[in-house]
Amino acid sequence: MLRVWDLDFELSKDSHLSMHAQITSKVIKEIRRGRLKPKVAMPGTRKLADTLGVNRKTVLLAYTELVEQGWLTTERNRGTFVSEKLPDTIERQYSEEGLTPLNQQVNLNDDSATVAIQDGFVEFNDGDPDTRLLPFENIARAFRRALIVSGRSNKLGYQNPLGMLSLREAVLHMLSMHRGLNAGLENICMVRGSQMGIYLAASLLIKDDDCVVVETLARQSAENVFESFGANLMRVDIDQDGLNLDALEKLCKKQPVRAIYVTPHHQYPTTVMMSKARRARLLLLAEQYGFYIIEDDYAHEFQFSGEPAFPLATYGESDRILHIGSLSKILAPGLRLGYLVASEQLVSRCVDEIMMIDIQGNLITEMAVSELMATGELKRHVLKAAKVYEERRHAMDALLRDTLLDFVDFNLPEGGLAFWVTFKHQVKLEAFLTQATLHKLRITPSAIFSDANDHIVGIRLGFASLGMRELEQAVSRLRTTLNACVKS
Amino acid sequence: MLRVWDLDFELSKDSHLSMHAQITSKVIKEIRRGRLKPKVAMPGTRKLADTLGVNRKTVLLAYTELVEQGWLTTERNRGTFVSEKLPDTIERQYSEEGLTPLNQQVNLNDDSATVAIQDGFVEFNDGDPDTRLLPFENIARAFRRALIVSGRSNKLGYQNPLGMLSLREAVLHMLSMHRGLNAGLENICMVRGSQMGIYLAASLLIKDDDCVVVETLARQSAENVFESFGANLMRVDIDQDGLNLDALEKLCKKQPVRAIYVTPHHQYPTTVMMSKARRARLLLLAEQYGFYIIEDDYAHEFQFSGEPAFPLATYGESDRILHIGSLSKILAPGLRLGYLVASEQLVSRCVDEIMMIDIQGNLITEMAVSELMATGELKRHVLKAAKVYEERRHAMDALLRDTLLDFVDFNLPEGGLAFWVTFKHQVKLEAFLTQATLHKLRITPSAIFSDANDHIVGIRLGFASLGMRELEQAVSRLRTTLNACVKS
Repeated sequence: MLRVWDLDFELSKDSHLSMHAQITSKVIKEIRRGRLKPKVAMPGTRKLADTLGVNRKTVLLAYTELVEQGWLTTERNRGTFVSEKLPDTIERQYSEEGLTPLNQQVNLNDDSATVAIQDGFVEFNDGDPDTRLLPFENIARAFRRALIVSGRSNKLGYQNPLGMLSLREAVLHMLSMHRGLNAGLENICMVRGSQMGIYLAASLLIKDDDCVVVETLARQSAENVFESFGANLMRVDIDQDGLNLDALEKLCKKQPVRAIYVTPHHQYPTTVMMSKARRARLLLLAEQYGFYIIEDDYAHEFQFSGEPAFPLATYGESDRILHIGSLSKILAPGLRLGYLVASEQLVSRCVDEIMMIDIQGNLITEMAVSELMATGELKRHVLKAAKVYEERRHAMDALLRDTLLDFVDFNLPEGGLAFWVTFKHQVKLEAFLTQATLHKLRITPSAIFSDANDHIVGIRLGFASLGMRELEQAVSRLRTTLNACVKS
Repeated sequence: MLRVWDLDFELSKDSHLSMHAQITSKVIKEIRRGRLKPKVAMPGTRKLADTLGVNRKTVLLAYTELVEQGWLTTERNRGTFVSEKLPDTIERQYSEEGLTPLNQQVNLNDDSATVAIQDGFVEFNDGDPDTRLLPFENIARAFRRALIVSGRSNKLGYQNPLGMLSLREAVLHMLSMHRGLNAGLENICMVRGSQMGIYLAASLLIKDDDCVVVETLARQSAENVFESFGANLMRVDIDQDGLNLDALEKLCKKQPVRAIYVTPHHQYPTTVMMSKARRARLLLLAEQYGFYIIEDDYAHEFQFSGEPAFPLATYGESDRILHIGSLSKILAPGLRLGYLVASEQLVSRCVDEIMMIDIQGNLITEMAVSELMATGELKRHVLKAAKVYEERRHAMDALLRDTLLDFVDFNLPEGGLAFWVTFKHQVKLEAFLTQATLHKLRITPSAIFSDANDHIVGIRLGFASLGMRELEQAVSRLRTTLNACVKS
């Protein structure tokens, strides 16, 4: 057994955020240096966490990642060891980037050929789209035109920090047609994915010790942003109709609330839709108590059943609503395209913030996508993808019902690209991650929610990016994983 | 004359940054609403600045932009008026985005056909490349492959926040081959242009009231970032060998210095190179007084004469150096690709910051560019572009000598893509901007440096993006502009 004090572990304590990336990198470095030799036993996660003074979950996440990358292996009931056969550079690149070379033919009808399975693992993300469905050639042509038109005009330089005019117009048109949201060019700002929309919203609104309300369970990456701007997070619970507004009002009576971050369309992670009555009352409360509403309207496009609902930003004509959305779900997260719709005053302040952060977005991507929107190509893709996703949603529903009802509870989500499942048994996060890795099941870490005692509260299982055979494999491995957790 | 209190001008005072974008947008709105009618005289800039409680430069910048966009017109000795013929949407889009349609043939040998002249204006930016020189078809093919390879693998989603492994490896290789900089994968983080490198550096290092040293004249967008993180900026002067280190040391003896932001390779804006002796001493001072060095190494590739010099990050093996660079000058600013090279500890903290800001960069762009670097395509382009830029540098030198020596002083820059010119006469910023607009000369606002009395200190004139005939026109218009300023 390796003594942890043999490791060159100087973690940065300056950051108040999770340090699992630091641990991962340290271990890889020690293995490369030869100080951690193949077959050597790694310290237990609790031991290492205590020594480093970090949360045990941090160490667990690092170990899970190291096993997935091939640096460590886990042996049932024995512990975690440095791998006998270390990943060399090429394998590492392949595994880190997980790409299929262009000359390797991919048969889209046979999804066993795709990367989701080819490294042996099958993965549940938290609700990403399937980019294999994209109309590649049309998109590639749009990129080519964008490159040539802007490059030849010598205009592939600095442009409007709010984003290309034609893209902003195209997005406004989409919001107006599909979400009834009427806003002008002075109200919209393009951002690099909805994460940057959240970051900008926080930078515009939040100062030290401001109270920001989030739902009991919420997107960790949003909570991190608010806290980094000094917010005190307060949690309000959710039920089958969404946010508990009585609880919210009680809180507002006790203390000033600066802003509330909500995902009314499909609550993240639980997929619950906020009822119309609650939406109306939330807007009234915002006026009454003077707080801002940061509305994260991810995956709005994919609504499979239930009554269609408009965003809060459509119902309310208030300057207090910041509406955030992205093209990640209808196109691809890797293109980093999102938008923030807000009052003219807030949007004009975004200019200064963006000039400091990254000056502007990627012009080629903005031009190409605005063309895809203007020609209707994007809309055709969304309609086609929505049909595929609806089939997969039904398949996922059937698979969970047929094989997992002993272990999990869930509801069929009315929209969005993920199911929310809760466990019938108490399952420890550590045991679950260990078993999942053993059974070659990967789950995006941010999709797993656990409580203060490290028991899993629920998992958000994205279904859209998995083909039918991949879904079967993934659910079957989840069953084996849970079975092992419950038995042990 | 319009009374300014007739305007619906509620500027946001929350932001401590410039508000010219707000004013621009307000004026456009008032014109669209019909409250500011064609031919109406606008209030004088001093008057409006006083009423709004903003700096006069802010109003000047807004007016200049409004004239360029066609909303206002300036008449010699009479003032500024709402345009008789307002720009309609299509004209506005064309002008805002300044693009040549793909079906309009562009003859690269005849640069009079390009946009730099076609709207009647010719523009000096502060040192951007000429994207007309790019190997479009090869880049378009790389984008197409990136899109298909990543999309088909269903990997056009979320990846490593530090950037694609293959791109980080390609950039490290470039830094090692051309700048002698030996760093590992654990030391590099891809960012969206060097601006984001500066933003990350500030977020990692700067807290309220930290002292940050900048050169007397420095990049405004960097100063804004440091100040937004609470820094106290202290200025140290520069001479023909770069930063005055005696002055820096004197400052360090008086108070703790947290960081210094420098552009040693070609000082921004003055283009001066820091001598080797000073570089060595700056590194020693950093150790002695415990400050960080934020080295902005923009446009490193274009060194036309003088001794080649390595970055500070190459000379010093210190954890105190954050080296920032970008691919904006060798490719195109609109692709937003930059990098930060720093200690492993700082880079691992970047992960958390990036996860909050934008999660990761644009995957298609990262993949395509890493291919262009791996195949040597980018290097071939740089060699070709450098030859063109060297010719333009000579042409610019000759033009300035032949026609502008009555008005300006300058030195031929040893590297970089801009000249620094100072004026022999006192010229007021307002008069200069007015005359430049009248003579259809546009100058990137951030390239003009003025003092507390609104006198112009100097202008950074980018030469690389202008063809020979464009350069002639631009210099000739600058002469007419200066002539008018000095006479009036």
